[in-house]
Amino acid sequence: MRTVGQSIKRVDAYEKVSGRAKFTDDLIPKHCLTAKVLHAPIASGIVASIDTSEAEALEGVVKVVTFRDVPKHTYPTPGHPWSVEPSHQDTADRRLLTGRIRYYGDDVAAVIAEDEVTASRALKLIRTEYEEYAPVLHPRDAMKGTIPPVHEEHPDNILAKSSYEIGHVDDALSQADAVLSESFRTPIVQHCHIEPPISYAYMEKDRIVVVCSTQIPHIVRRVIGQALGIPWGKVRVIKPYIGGGFGNKQEVLYEPLNAFLTASVGGRPVKLELSREETFTNTRTRHSIEYDLTAGVTKDGKILAKDMKAYSNQGAYASHGHAIAANGATAWRHLYDVKNIRADAYTVYTNAPVGGAMRGYGIPQFCFVSECLMDDLACKISMDPLKFRELNLYDGYFEDPVLTPLAANTNGVRECMRRGADYIHWEEKRSLYQNQSGNIRRGVGMALFSYKTGVWPISLEISGARLILNQDGSVQLQTGAAEIGQGSDTVFTQMAAEVLGLSPDDVHIQSFQDTDITPFDTGAYASRQTYISGTAVKECAELLKEKILTYARTLVAEEYRDQELSLYDKQILCGRKPVLSLEELAFHSYYSRTSSAAITSDVSRQIKKNTLAFGACFAEIEVDLKLAKIKILDIINVHDSGKIINPQLASMQVHGGMSMGIGYGLSEQMLLDEKTGRVLNGSLLDYKLPTMMDSPDLHLDFVELEDPTGPFGNKALGEPPAIPPAPAIRNAFLHATGIPVNEIPLSPQRVFEALKKADLI
Amino acid sequence: MRTVGQSIKRVDAYEKVSGRAKFTDDLIPKHCLTAKVLHAPIASGIVASIDTSEAEALEGVVKVVTFRDVPKHTYPTPGHPWSVEPSHQDTADRRLLTGRIRYYGDDVAAVIAEDEVTASRALKLIRTEYEEYAPVLHPRDAMKGTIPPVHEEHPDNILAKSSYEIGHVDDALSQADAVLSESFRTPIVQHCHIEPPISYAYMEKDRIVVVCSTQIPHIVRRVIGQALGIPWGKVRVIKPYIGGGFGNKQEVLYEPLNAFLTASVGGRPVKLELSREETFTNTRTRHSIEYDLTAGVTKDGKILAKDMKAYSNQGAYASHGHAIAANGATAWRHLYDVKNIRADAYTVYTNAPVGGAMRGYGIPQFCFVSECLMDDLACKISMDPLKFRELNLYDGYFEDPVLTPLAANTNGVRECMRRGADYIHWEEKRSLYQNQSGNIRRGVGMALFSYKTGVWPISLEISGARLILNQDGSVQLQTGAAEIGQGSDTVFTQMAAEVLGLSPDDVHIQSFQDTDITPFDTGAYASRQTYISGTAVKECAELLKEKILTYARTLVAEEYRDQELSLYDKQILCGRKPVLSLEELAFHSYYSRTSSAAITSDVSRQIKKNTLAFGACFAEIEVDLKLAKIKILDIINVHDSGKIINPQLASMQVHGGMSMGIGYGLSEQMLLDEKTGRVLNGSLLDYKLPTMMDSPDLHLDFVELEDPTGPFGNKALGEPPAIPPAPAIRNAFLHATGIPVNEIPLSPQRVFEALKKADLI
Repeated sequence: MRTVGQSIKRVDAYEKVSGRAKFTDDLIPKHCLTAKVLHAPIASGIVASIDTSEAEALEGVVKVVTFRDVPKHTYPTPGHPWSVEPSHQDTADRRLLTGRIRYYGDDVAAVIAEDEVTASRALKLIRTEYEEYAPVLHPRDAMKGTIPPVHEEHPDNILAKSSYEIGHVDDALSQADAVLSESFRTPIVQHCHIEPPISYAYMEKDRIVVVCSTQIPHIVRRVIGQALGIPWGKVRVIKPYIGGGFGNKQEVLYEPLNAFLTASVGGRPVKLELSREETFTNTRTRHSIEYDLTAGVTKDGKILAKDMKAYSNQGAYASHGHAIAANGATAWRHLYDVKNIRADAYTVYTNAPVGGAMRGYGIPQFCFVSECLMDDLACKISMDPLKFRELNLYDGYFEDPVLTPLAANTNGVRECMRRGADYIHWEEKRSLYQNQSGNIRRGVGMALFSYKTGVWPISLEISGARLILNQDGSVQLQTGAAEIGQGSDTVFTQMAAEVLGLSPDDVHIQSFQDTDITPFDTGAYASRQTYISGTAVKECAELLKEKILTYARTLVAEEYRDQELSLYDKQILCGRKPVLSLEELAFHSYYSRTSSAAITSDVSRQIKKNTLAFGACFAEIEVDLKLAKIKILDIINVHDSGKIINPQLASMQVHGGMSMGIGYGLSEQMLLDEKTGRVLNGSLLDYKLPTMMDSPDLHLDFVELEDPTGPFGNKALGEPPAIPPAPAIRNAFLHATGIPVNEIPLSPQRVFEALKKADLI
Repeated sequence: MRTVGQSIKRVDAYEKVSGRAKFTDDLIPKHCLTAKVLHAPIASGIVASIDTSEAEALEGVVKVVTFRDVPKHTYPTPGHPWSVEPSHQDTADRRLLTGRIRYYGDDVAAVIAEDEVTASRALKLIRTEYEEYAPVLHPRDAMKGTIPPVHEEHPDNILAKSSYEIGHVDDALSQADAVLSESFRTPIVQHCHIEPPISYAYMEKDRIVVVCSTQIPHIVRRVIGQALGIPWGKVRVIKPYIGGGFGNKQEVLYEPLNAFLTASVGGRPVKLELSREETFTNTRTRHSIEYDLTAGVTKDGKILAKDMKAYSNQGAYASHGHAIAANGATAWRHLYDVKNIRADAYTVYTNAPVGGAMRGYGIPQFCFVSECLMDDLACKISMDPLKFRELNLYDGYFEDPVLTPLAANTNGVRECMRRGADYIHWEEKRSLYQNQSGNIRRGVGMALFSYKTGVWPISLEISGARLILNQDGSVQLQTGAAEIGQGSDTVFTQMAAEVLGLSPDDVHIQSFQDTDITPFDTGAYASRQTYISGTAVKECAELLKEKILTYARTLVAEEYRDQELSLYDKQILCGRKPVLSLEELAFHSYYSRTSSAAITSDVSRQIKKNTLAFGACFAEIEVDLKLAKIKILDIINVHDSGKIINPQLASMQVHGGMSMGIGYGLSEQMLLDEKTGRVLNGSLLDYKLPTMMDSPDLHLDFVELEDPTGPFGNKALGEPPAIPPAPAIRNAFLHATGIPVNEIPLSPQRVFEALKKADLI
């Protein structure tokens, strides 16, 4: 391969570095109105009365709408593919605005004004009275039942429950030499993308157009149609460059409300941008999940059985719902060869802010607890945790017992582990740090993970691409897949260039998605794009090549017509001999009076495959006991994501994910007031997102086994890097101090409490 | 047919009436720079010196470029399809800016500034000295040779000459009972579209994007590539709604300069909008053509032979060049069955403003002179002009002897003539107004014409369309053809709806063309779109329907799978029985986990057909001898344009064309100073464009013979309405006064001179 596997420069590098790339806010038309949302100051209750007359009377206010004005039906918001099967459709449990308040900040009304200041002033002039109920914030509390329930349809507040058992867990546990039961809890965290959710909406004829910062333009279109109860063809969604999403923009947040607002003012353009504080409270979070885990092992280190109970805090609305907790329950079956496995997962409504998709989709939570368990089990039988994992890992190929064709088509996890251990000098340091004393303690820890690539067979996988051959032999490439900063435009460019034998400079990718024009694709999530959308791009390029070569037969000299032709470096080749330039062929396709037709290819493909990616993280940390502070001395992620399409971009992806994983492990947590349900630290000042100053040097490596199902041997990479750092750090802390902490983040507060409890300070 | 043939409302009606439709100027980004062009104040000469230092020193000036800075190669500007055959390529005779001045106002330099006022001030600070040559303004003067010639490559100033003879003209003339020789001249007129030429240009990565008001986005892309000498794939052209073109925007005017300007300031956005005065002088005009015609007739009214010499005033640059004069020479072979025909046509460079494409493309000039000749011949043998035409018209089908397959596949001209004569009470009024006296004289006159549909086989015809089936069974339609106010978006919507059995409300057409995305089509000209692009739209819809029905077979009940299925009213029918809704099918195509793929069709078609449209105009006028003023009492155009797709839109098209034809006949003329070549009346104040107040009630009728080659039986209608009014009015004046005036416009000045010469005043 000439282009795939090369670190070509990002195709949007110049535009982004020079500030020329257009984001939603750069495109806002002149005379755009501004909308702002009135949020309830209680976590549970109802609006007893609302009076908008003063707000409406304010000069510059164009319209005030309340929960009384919006359509009465409910709609779903998550960025899942829809389905013809009702059982595969998402829970429709929200309206555009609500009089039944379900979390602190729920959306009651909206103001449209000529400018932002007026809109803000008008919000304050809306008079509301609330009837308040006691909020419930934790899933196991909520499961006991509340009056009223968060949603009437779910009296026990359980949105969904799933269970499975493979083998005979209880029997196996009874035969184990050692059994360990532990409880864990992961925090609510937020994505903290740079660009807050923003959209502007207007009407063209009788259609609504929404330009927005989203990962899933085609899904936004569908959900607006559902929310407003209008035919989906009456909606058009345009996605410019976006400033990050991390899953929060894999949800249809305020776009439907904005669509409703523009329609309510006759189609005048309306802008709706969330503040950072609203982004924390009113968008989505990574679910907090509580786990009870039990496992039984033999004394020589073989896991006989394991059992998981998971309680996922869904917050006030269904959003992605049970899929997050279920994803962990599925992963519970992978990676380690255990014959007896059981899982019970609950997703529970509470009055907390809403949990949704976030990079890793349940696996950062699951991996944290299961890799903690691995170290704790190893500890229990006094075995080196690496050796313990080696004894239990699947060797090579394995398949999921339930979800066909989900499998480890290639499995590089052992090699990832070997390289990570070598890098961190595992054996040496495990023994070196065995018996420490003094204020400074060091430790090394590790974690492994597996991760699906896309969502088949749980949900539909479908993608499309279109190519147009230009007069100069260059091509335009359109995909429905979304560039969200991860570099997908660059790797698609490489893929098309590879198949067509072109330089990437001759592939002009269209970065904007416009649902009226763009091939259908469900969007950027589930680490699916390089694998799923990449397959569509590859097939689209192959079809274009076939059309080019077919046309070439009509143009080349007689002697070459019946021979095999190929395309490379803008030349039609017969064997190695150039017999026609691509430019001349393209020129004929547009301008031959004998026979011309523009050469294009437009494909839409359902893709029924999946494959597991793997990886390992190794961390070396230093604990300052008196400061109760953890410092990362060294850290490495080693990934088996199959063939790497662009090593430079992939490295950046890993760096970003590792930072996120480190924040998850050490500092990030959205705190709620236990009494009111209010977010206590919903700003970038108070929420401890790691900055450049907090980040250690990040190291990484790739084990490049070519996956037979990936379009170029590739598999998931987008989300995985964020998964293993938190458990690796926790396990290093265990190594350094001997203390197993079962809740993250390992913030100074929590470390202090743990050290105190262990009498180390 | 359910939709084709109906007067549905324009699809852009609401957007345009409400002011919401976006034109280029509405889209100009914030912080856009403004460019202005320095025009030479002489008609022929060279720039002896140029000093831009003062202009460059002005605060707010970003850059000044002169003819010294632009690429040295020449490029062509007309909106013709390009060709792989050099003989079919247009004349490349201009640069972006020039030091050799060829007409008064030629482009010497350009200023880019932060704002318009600064740009204007800077223009005045550029110091220039010119060496002046004597300008030549008339073709027959120019053909004598000038020193230097207008272009060095053409020492005799003849850009092109074409000749043909069918039969033996001189022999036939010698056998005629009467021979008439006359000379004619048509004026230079201007299009007067509401929106002046405007563009803004910027760079994306290493590519240049130009958003502009054009009829031919894909051709603008190509010409920018040629003008700048860069690969055509590096150029992207976007066409929003445009405020009229009439052929002036079937030329690539200032877009290449603007592309050059943005590139010269590192890709910052630059706006270049022409003033009305620049639009008159520096864009294109309808050619003035001088004709010498001779014809011989028998005394019973049969034309034996006819001969034409045409001298077309090209002005300073080739533009569409000889194609305009040649188009008249071709039409000279049509309509009337004459066995001996000769034509010699010259297109001659002068120092006048440049002639280009304008609605009718040489036929308004040709039709004026040939239909004058018809009346004058009838007069000479004392025959009624209608009867004389009847005797000579082809009956039904005829074909062009040279340009296969150009033919009258259907020929309704006799029926057009009959209906027009009935309407105007021809026989009654011809005799009623026979012998008038007094100050007020009345007359009725007529004219016939034929008109090609598109440009095949002279040039390439190619078009494309793309359709996407939405989840709700509606479709998006993309065409490369350009809505320029003529209503093409509406008729394409009707065509797609017709084939797919949809309501037009369920066809969402994309009005913007974007050469990166839009199917390839050469644009709006030659009355080609409904016929050529319409064929692509029809085939695209048929392909979509076929794909829909193929997919339907996988979804309908077993018993219907092998039967013939059809699509109507959003239902899949077996016979007349609905067996599946289109919405359900569409839904499955997106969301079936069993088998889904978005259903689209994307076609590009070369179209090798042509057909002649016909029509007649009848006018009744009143001449006030003392005021030397003509008043139109009644006027009707009757068109044979085949099947009418949308009668209401077609009527509006005819109204617009008739107004243009009336202006051509009565008032419009661009006047040049004979000494300097300067345009004397280059503003809408001085140039006498008819206004609403000048326009009589306009009447029209359609003879709807279904053309077998038209996609829906249709043929050319866009340009024809402008063709026959001028000769009909002139012939009515002849009837009223007995005076044959062989030059238009019949302005009061010219009428006064004619009446004076004839001793009627």
